[in-house]
Amino acid sequence: MKEIEIEIQKRGKILPGNVLKVNSFLNHQLDPVFLDKMADQWYNLFKNDNVTKIITIEASGIALAVLTGLKFKVPVIFAKKSESSNIGKTYKSLIYSYTRHQSFVINIEKEFLTSDDRVLIIDDFLANGSATLGMIDIINQANAHLVGVGIAIEKGFQEGGKILRDKKIRVESLAIIDSMDDEAKKIHFKEMEKVVD
Amino acid sequence: MKEIEIEIQKRGKILPGNVLKVNSFLNHQLDPVFLDKMADQWYNLFKNDNVTKIITIEASGIALAVLTGLKFKVPVIFAKKSESSNIGKTYKSLIYSYTRHQSFVINIEKEFLTSDDRVLIIDDFLANGSATLGMIDIINQANAHLVGVGIAIEKGFQEGGKILRDKKIRVESLAIIDSMDDEAKKIHFKEMEKVVD
Repeated sequence: MKEIEIEIQKRGKILPGNVLKVNSFLNHQLDPVFLDKMADQWYNLFKNDNVTKIITIEASGIALAVLTGLKFKVPVIFAKKSESSNIGKTYKSLIYSYTRHQSFVINIEKEFLTSDDRVLIIDDFLANGSATLGMIDIINQANAHLVGVGIAIEKGFQEGGKILRDKKIRVESLAIIDSMDDEAKKIHFKEMEKVVD
Repeated sequence: MKEIEIEIQKRGKILPGNVLKVNSFLNHQLDPVFLDKMADQWYNLFKNDNVTKIITIEASGIALAVLTGLKFKVPVIFAKKSESSNIGKTYKSLIYSYTRHQSFVINIEKEFLTSDDRVLIIDDFLANGSATLGMIDIINQANAHLVGVGIAIEKGFQEGGKILRDKKIRVESLAIIDSMDDEAKKIHFKEMEKVVD
């Protein structure tokens, strides 16, 4: 885990208003080798949980999810933010993006998610939890089983992690940010008990 | 290549109007193991071309691009269809999606693409070529060098492939569809000279 925190500190840019810009490796330019190390972590954490499917949301979760799916050798579904003309019947959930200040409906085709599925959610960020809760809503609609949630960067100063853990959902964040110092350009990470290096 | 054609025939659904639905493995649900085989093909085709960067467009190109990027050990950039609030200065190009019947601007942050870069474009589909031409436009704006284009499925009955090859651009499509028979549910593939199995 430490390595991931060091890389985030080194490559992330802190912008005013507690915004962490990780465009250089996580959500515009991607560093496949670094992202693959994250995927290794989630594989080690969840490999005994009989995961049958991985779910994420387009666009920035896809890279992490497909690299993780390759290790589990299971299908990956990315929830779509719009319905294309040739999509079948979908499970839907309404989520709100604080980054974009807008609500949108995420869609997953019904045929790809069944009550036999044991689902791992993978995403790049956990902040207020809206995206994750939307995916969980869809997993519940399908009567599938949620195994847990793998997050690259959790903003520990926002409520998403607490909401999920209070529901007894297993959340494995590779780095949890306690606070960011805009002027000193320093990120303070939460000390984590579990280390899987 | 043959294996890819067989899988496309088996898993793709032909809808009226020459629409090939590949939602089950390529652009909604993803099959990481199959997609990784495609990445192997592009790696073998371009491994001697000193590729320094891979470019694709969100969302459905990301999975293929990141798996390919992992083999080349180079950064992957996915062009964004919208400008987020914390993105830097971008190269832009206007593309038109016939699937969605709308134009949109794709964006790549200027700092990630330089005149030293040797760029491989990776995408899931090549049809009219608008998306690929948009990416090439951005590569030209950055004075970077285009090494070639890796496409999973080319619709050979649309003009994109011809436009690119007429410009002497190296296009490596893993499967080229000549025609689709809506009633018989058969896909006819173009016989290709080059086989890299």
